Amino acid sequence: MNIADCLEKIRQKKPLIHHITNWVTIYDCANITRAIGALPVMAHAKEEVEQMTSIADALVLNIGTLTIGLVESMVLAGRTANKKGIPVILDVVGAGATDFRTKKAKEILKKVKISVLKGNSSEIGTMAGVEAETKGVEAISVKGNLTEIAKNLAKMEKLTVVITGEEDIISNGIDTYICKNGHYMLGKFVGTGCMAASLIGAFSAVEKDYVYASTAALSCFGIAGELAAENAKGPGTYKINFFDEIFNLNSGSIGKMKKIEKIS
Amino acid sequence: MNIADCLEKIRQKKPLIHHITNWVTIYDCANITRAIGALPVMAHAKEEVEQMTSIADALVLNIGTLTIGLVESMVLAGRTANKKGIPVILDVVGAGATDFRTKKAKEILKKVKISVLKGNSSEIGTMAGVEAETKGVEAISVKGNLTEIAKNLAKMEKLTVVITGEEDIISNGIDTYICKNGHYMLGKFVGTGCMAASLIGAFSAVEKDYVYASTAALSCFGIAGELAAENAKGPGTYKINFFDEIFNLNSGSIGKMKKIEKIS
Amino acid sequence: MNIADCLEKIRQKKPLIHHITNWVTIYDCANITRAIGALPVMAHAKEEVEQMTSIADALVLNIGTLTIGLVESMVLAGRTANKKGIPVILDVVGAGATDFRTKKAKEILKKVKISVLKGNSSEIGTMAGVEAETKGVEAISVKGNLTEIAKNLAKMEKLTVVITGEEDIISNGIDTYICKNGHYMLGKFVGTGCMAASLIGAFSAVEKDYVYASTAALSCFGIAGELAAENAKGPGTYKINFFDEIFNLNSGSIGKMKKIEKIS
Repeated sequence: MNIADCLEKIRQKKPLIHHITNWVTIYDCANITRAIGALPVMAHAKEEVEQMTSIADALVLNIGTLTIGLVESMVLAGRTANKKGIPVILDVVGAGATDFRTKKAKEILKKVKISVLKGNSSEIGTMAGVEAETKGVEAISVKGNLTEIAKNLAKMEKLTVVITGEEDIISNGIDTYICKNGHYMLGKFVGTGCMAASLIGAFSAVEKDYVYASTAALSCFGIAGELAAENAKGPGTYKINFFDEIFNLNSGSIGKMKKIEKIS
Repeated sequence: MNIADCLEKIRQKKPLIHHITNWVTIYDCANITRAIGALPVMAHAKEEVEQMTSIADALVLNIGTLTIGLVESMVLAGRTANKKGIPVILDVVGAGATDFRTKKAKEILKKVKISVLKGNSSEIGTMAGVEAETKGVEAISVKGNLTEIAKNLAKMEKLTVVITGEEDIISNGIDTYICKNGHYMLGKFVGTGCMAASLIGAFSAVEKDYVYASTAALSCFGIAGELAAENAKGPGTYKINFFDEIFNLNSGSIGKMKKIEKIS
Repeated sequence: MNIADCLEKIRQKKPLIHHITNWVTIYDCANITRAIGALPVMAHAKEEVEQMTSIADALVLNIGTLTIGLVESMVLAGRTANKKGIPVILDVVGAGATDFRTKKAKEILKKVKISVLKGNSSEIGTMAGVEAETKGVEAISVKGNLTEIAKNLAKMEKLTVVITGEEDIISNGIDTYICKNGHYMLGKFVGTGCMAASLIGAFSAVEKDYVYASTAALSCFGIAGELAAENAKGPGTYKINFFDEIFNLNSGSIGKMKKIEKIS
């Protein structure tokens, strides 16, 4: 499937994307899932996460405001997703900023078979065990070549690694893509990283080649970001435009605007 | 009171609407309460919910991201509301999607005297014990005639039942209304159901005939939704317009646009 | 530093503002922190708050939806901030509405050295021990002269007191400012008080004279609020404009529009 076909399939099939996520961007994650054409559900009580995941088509885990209790629910939901064979996206928000986050992110990665491990450069650097600095949820620095870090971590963990940034790197250890879509204004409001993970969840629910699904999701995300700049006067209007553009994405704009490079 | 009178009374009296709700749409619930002219307060700690409800004019309970602890607080607050004689709205978000939600929704309904029980068709179908499918928080199917389900459940539980959908059904077992206001774009962003419950809370705080208060609230909600479509380019701009229109509602637009039918 | 210099320093230094806040406005608090040019991080697990605060440049505590567990985390983070010597902002949302809030707000104030204590008139009145009524999170009444209440509380607690309202009062017991910037539409959507505290956090991170930093923050907040009114059709568009204007603030508009009066 090409990108527009994936998008069309999301809109037709309306996959249910179960999120266990943070309290900051939980609304925007649900909202972008709906805007792209899928169905979001947010549920974190350990008494119900397994059953909720069992009716879902993808699971998105995000450690942005994690607690011990949430990690427990993530593992329960993750194992259910593994049994069912649906994709699990893990967004390691803030990994490296505190030992607690780093440790818990690694614990989830160990206990659940993750399909797509996503973060910014220092978060993924932290997960890969290279020297990296995360300031809150912001990437400050990482030692080493990002593409190599993504590839090696993907090979070692047998999953797809996504490093978001000015250019996104997506690798499953064999296939590696660079996505150059995007706009600097996407960095001027809160929640873009989390929302990108939700889109990856929606695309992975309809396309089992997760490295391609992730690339397609990020390209759509970036294209909407480029289109949103028109008439935006700041991060307020820009964000509103962005949701409009996600909703209005079509094969025409995607075909004309996508900037994806396969580098291996 | 007609609808415009209810609205005017909300704006003059500024009733305090205490919510114990979910973490996804909590902001929008507070915000629409403010936009219509009432005062929102969100408080869920079991140490304070009773005192908060005791100064409130209506209580809105929403199980969208329920946990054991939240249910406990809901029951404490609900019983305080019952003692004080203020309306209690229960929005059974996701009932039927997991056994936990269904069970807890029924537990709250048993322990607290609910004034308005609200949900989409499959959520209310689940509460009524008929065959129904809820996918996350989305109604998929329900067996039986919705108006009859609403009427019978209302009679049995001695409360007002609201089934939201393309056409809203509102019944207290004796009086039954259909509200045909609304716009398909209301389904393209997250939180409309929850926000509708907040409006029902605000209207019920000033109009003790809850079946009528609920109908009035849903009509205002739908009218704002119709007006919001002008100049909207997608769910981003549409939602922003919607908040403007809720705030700007007046007797002129309500009188001209309301589509309410009393069917019994 | 004048106000524009403070703003410039925020944009250059990008201080990290650690929030432990409520679930209603958590997104907007993060978002305004980003819009002004600082970096937000929201983290509340007691296992990580100390380490997160230790890499932060200011700490913002907000009791809007407090629980016993959150208060524990606030004290841990607050003490870390005290050791490190970074400013701690305490926004006593809803103090006076329930005994639990009042008691916990006072407990935090006792256990943590607060730099800026912020609230509306009845919340601060409650903290000062004067007769006051808070309806949910809304100020209803307070007995006494607000400027005197602010001054005396500031002297007694050895901190800066901020009373927000149509005119903001900012005092450290010696210097007292009145800020007259603002717009009535700021009261028509939810979260302005919380966001103002986030801005105070950002300004206090770069300007150690907290009474001046708070005044500068509130002036910027109010100026953006005045500018946002242009083309706004209601609280929806107004809020969007407001975020644009916060992002676009510059020395020109600040110099021309600031309305600050030093009254002692």
